[in-house]
Amino acid sequence: TTTYKICLLAGDGIGPEIIAEGVKVLNAVGAKYDTAFEYTDALIGGAAIDATGEPLPTATLDAARASDAVLLAAVGGPKWDTTDPAAPRPEQGLLGIRKELGLYTNLRPVQIFNALADASTLRPEIVDGVDMMIVRELTGGLYFGRRERFYDEPAAGVNGAPGQRAYDTLEYSEYEIERIARQAFEIARKRRGKVTSVDKANVLETSRLWREIVHRVHDADYADVELEDLLVDNTAMQLINRPADFDVVVTENMFGDILSDEAAQITGSLGMLASASLGDGVALYEPSHGSAPDIAGRGIANPLAQILSVEMMLRYSFGMGEAADDIRRAVTEVLDAGWRTGDIKDAETPVDKVVGTAKMGDLVVEHL
Amino acid sequence: TTTYKICLLAGDGIGPEIIAEGVKVLNAVGAKYDTAFEYTDALIGGAAIDATGEPLPTATLDAARASDAVLLAAVGGPKWDTTDPAAPRPEQGLLGIRKELGLYTNLRPVQIFNALADASTLRPEIVDGVDMMIVRELTGGLYFGRRERFYDEPAAGVNGAPGQRAYDTLEYSEYEIERIARQAFEIARKRRGKVTSVDKANVLETSRLWREIVHRVHDADYADVELEDLLVDNTAMQLINRPADFDVVVTENMFGDILSDEAAQITGSLGMLASASLGDGVALYEPSHGSAPDIAGRGIANPLAQILSVEMMLRYSFGMGEAADDIRRAVTEVLDAGWRTGDIKDAETPVDKVVGTAKMGDLVVEHL
Ligand SMILES: CC(C)[C@H](C(=O)O)[C@@H](O)C(=O)O
Ligand SMILES: CC(C)[C@H](C(=O)O)[C@@H](O)C(=O)O
Repeated sequence: TTTYKICLLAGDGIGPEIIAEGVKVLNAVGAKYDTAFEYTDALIGGAAIDATGEPLPTATLDAARASDAVLLAAVGGPKWDTTDPAAPRPEQGLLGIRKELGLYTNLRPVQIFNALADASTLRPEIVDGVDMMIVRELTGGLYFGRRERFYDEPAAGVNGAPGQRAYDTLEYSEYEIERIARQAFEIARKRRGKVTSVDKANVLETSRLWREIVHRVHDADYADVELEDLLVDNTAMQLINRPADFDVVVTENMFGDILSDEAAQITGSLGMLASASLGDGVALYEPSHGSAPDIAGRGIANPLAQILSVEMMLRYSFGMGEAADDIRRAVTEVLDAGWRTGDIKDAETPVDKVVGTAKMGDLVVEHL
Repeated sequence: TTTYKICLLAGDGIGPEIIAEGVKVLNAVGAKYDTAFEYTDALIGGAAIDATGEPLPTATLDAARASDAVLLAAVGGPKWDTTDPAAPRPEQGLLGIRKELGLYTNLRPVQIFNALADASTLRPEIVDGVDMMIVRELTGGLYFGRRERFYDEPAAGVNGAPGQRAYDTLEYSEYEIERIARQAFEIARKRRGKVTSVDKANVLETSRLWREIVHRVHDADYADVELEDLLVDNTAMQLINRPADFDVVVTENMFGDILSDEAAQITGSLGMLASASLGDGVALYEPSHGSAPDIAGRGIANPLAQILSVEMMLRYSFGMGEAADDIRRAVTEVLDAGWRTGDIKDAETPVDKVVGTAKMGDLVVEHL
């Protein structure tokens, strides 16, 4: 029996409820594939702020580093919303763990489950066949550049009166661009062989460097992969216009944040989308959606994105491709059988097919 | 007879063809409303690079400054695409004139013409009633911050080898945020009274300053207007999910670039959307679409966005609200009568209803 150590970060809002279903599925997979999963719970986000005053306690980082993979649910909520720049914020836990574990590759698959095709606000013929992988650079750019606020700078206020001024820095090195580009090309080779590299090279110097390096890497080592450049504003349009045309989309951190959420919404079912954050060591898996504080604690949250993040964990961290396929098949079958949580039900869903968080987890386990 | 001086910047691609239709409509309006329009042609973009080596010659700036309003068509094309950082690029003409004329407010109305509701890739019930105004800050942020590239910086390359590094700076002052916020609130008062302010305050210091100032201006002077904050990633989703809910959307330069194009695509007919760039002096009006080099010179481009940018000019620069309404009514009637250019035709459009650029301009004039 192989044993894997998994660090569980339940976080805030619906986090504890959905991560329990991820664990339920892991245990079922473990039994079926003769694999043992050992869990360590640790604190992150608002829950960590409440308990320790910090969004990412050292104990959490230690636990993550000592594990083979990290399963995260979600962080944040109105309780910790603050405009005080000195106060700790839940997101700092997320940004901190990305940086500390060196998780520079964020993979966000965007796929339509046939049973849920009607959930999209886009016409069915437009979303038919949508299957893309957004590869977002996750430890550089505006997220981690130098930032500052100046108080009472002369001339920053109205009509030259004293006022405040702030800046953030978008910075990229050749090294950072090269390694994420390689990831994108490698992934494209295992998919439909096409990479769309998104930048704003007509304005930004970092984008011009980005484009240059992406092409150099492509021409040297991945000439078999089709490469196109697309400006970020045009990409925001084309994702709506012809989403099924995209295969792998690679871009920097902030553009990736915006475009991956846009692409997710195209499916109409954010509660179904998982993500993986990979580096050179331990990787982290989480749903693409947030902590949904409005429905927390009621047992009605959709655990499927969390369960699909377990699928990604098995695939990318443990090389358990067959078990991963199994989870995806089970989820597809549960949906095909008509089962829905509140967020993915529609006017035609019979009342007795609408289930809560734990029941949805049970259904997936039954189908494994 | 009142006389207005208009500086015409035809630019590149389809620019010369569509601006001619804008002038045609202006002349018709002039005759009907006893107003004289005097035109001065000037060079910008690729055309200016070819003629003078510069994307924004001094003579063009002088002509713009000496006019009462500027009508621009479009700039750019593959002919001037270059990765050489030292070479002039057409977009520099556009960015330069925005900065030189102090055009800090970019207004991008997003509306659906009933006759074209089917052009959207979104479901009809979702786009029904879409009517928003995107207010984009146009002279600050990443577009105009300090940027640089370093060659052979140690440790920027692969595995610490020498490599390149680049940065761009996102900077905003209190003054810049306050004036664009006031514009948004003023516009909201004349519309449905709601402003959505978009930022990334959970990550960026400039966004935290943005949010603080927008709320201060709101609470002090515009408490009658409804104000909501929305993160940029969530906005990218909600524009697809519930576009009709948005009234006025105000945001910084780069977010505005991305979101206004996304919102434009929601209508499905980019060839119908105009924009106005306002400052404290002469204003500039242009279509939201680009120079479409692939169809340039063939007389088939859609001139309606250019014509609707004339509508905005009459409204915002000349206070000719009635004439502006007239143009909008004429365009609506032409569409209702079934006339289409190639970009807005669909499978049901009869061949004899598909017209070229000049004929579409004539039709609008007939309906004035
Ligand atoms: C919570 C926030 C800091 C985070 C981000 O912007 O990266 C989130 O939106 C995401 O995409 O994971
Ligand atoms: C051409 C480009 C520099 C410009 C911009 O990014 O502002 C364009 O996309 C626009 O939105 O007017």
